[in-house]
Amino acid sequence: MPKQVDHHKRREEIARALWRVVEQRGVAHLTTRVVAREAGMSLGQLQHYFASRTAMLSFAMDLASEQTSLRIDRGLKKLGDRPHPRDVLRLTLAEMLPLHTDARATSRMSAAYVLEALHDKDVHEQARRGLLQGRNLVEQLIRQAVTDGQIDPDRDPATETNLLLALTGFTPLIELDVIRPGDALTAIDLHLDRLFSGNDRSA
Amino acid sequence: MPKQVDHHKRREEIARALWRVVEQRGVAHLTTRVVAREAGMSLGQLQHYFASRTAMLSFAMDLASEQTSLRIDRGLKKLGDRPHPRDVLRLTLAEMLPLHTDARATSRMSAAYVLEALHDKDVHEQARRGLLQGRNLVEQLIRQAVTDGQIDPDRDPATETNLLLALTGFTPLIELDVIRPGDALTAIDLHLDRLFSGNDRSA
Repeated sequence: MPKQVDHHKRREEIARALWRVVEQRGVAHLTTRVVAREAGMSLGQLQHYFASRTAMLSFAMDLASEQTSLRIDRGLKKLGDRPHPRDVLRLTLAEMLPLHTDARATSRMSAAYVLEALHDKDVHEQARRGLLQGRNLVEQLIRQAVTDGQIDPDRDPATETNLLLALTGFTPLIELDVIRPGDALTAIDLHLDRLFSGNDRSA
Repeated sequence: MPKQVDHHKRREEIARALWRVVEQRGVAHLTTRVVAREAGMSLGQLQHYFASRTAMLSFAMDLASEQTSLRIDRGLKKLGDRPHPRDVLRLTLAEMLPLHTDARATSRMSAAYVLEALHDKDVHEQARRGLLQGRNLVEQLIRQAVTDGQIDPDRDPATETNLLLALTGFTPLIELDVIRPGDALTAIDLHLDRLFSGNDRSA
């Protein structure tokens, strides 16, 4: 295996060890020492791949976002050649919620990352950029649906985008068994039906 | 000062020191040792008031919920004798978002608590109970508004409650400067206008 590939592979292994620490033990245990132990290497070995805790965390978050995008892409392929924007939005939202094992791991990683971002300027900037990028994709999709007559032109795409993103607020409610996964999806479907019908009552 | 009151006062001081640690330095620093230092006491003194990190955290979370309720109550008084349910819901949602200093402190406390709950059965149960209680209050309010003809009877109160609670998902988006506070409130107002008009387009 070429050295560069091996290097990347080891970094991924460390990132996945970090996810396991966050998912199973919590962000309070998230130190380079604990992650090194989880990855089955010494602290010195880990530091060969990541110079700092922040560098390790940023890489693990990038990998989590990448994994979420891959899951969404796989889902999109099943929707056929020209998927309806409603289905694209539903799939995207659903993959951001902790509804299955992989999504739960990346969702917990993401929650830990947001908390870290509150106290680290670089992490804040990286998290912000990633979320703004995602937000822009959703807004473009909604604008296109308005142009294509699938969403009422009276709707404000920016505000509708914000409302959709806010629905990721189901995450802690699902994690704490306050709202059942099925009930969260019912609510999301209702919200999307209204968005695409332009009328509340048809839902 | 009677001893019991003094005891409670010291516990509150510790809880507020804990909030400051969570708000200013992050949940990764949340140990009894760090909180004791922030509260200006020895670890032994802190342990006199809280037998464990979890006991301290639970008390601090209860205090945060209490403070949020007090802020909502103060806001309700300004709305007059028989406030419109739309205004009550708006106030409740707004006070749960990090839109001003006090709300930010309790909101960060709450986010840290949710992460902790994922790995501690007792914390999970306490957090769940608190959120279910809040959820029930919102659902009662919506059911009453349906009875009073303020919300269309076609609306399902349980699903509408879930959608409203999910809008607390604006929290990380505001914290990371992805969505401006004013834009979050615009989206919440639009959502509430639709809920109380029964028709999407009137908003």
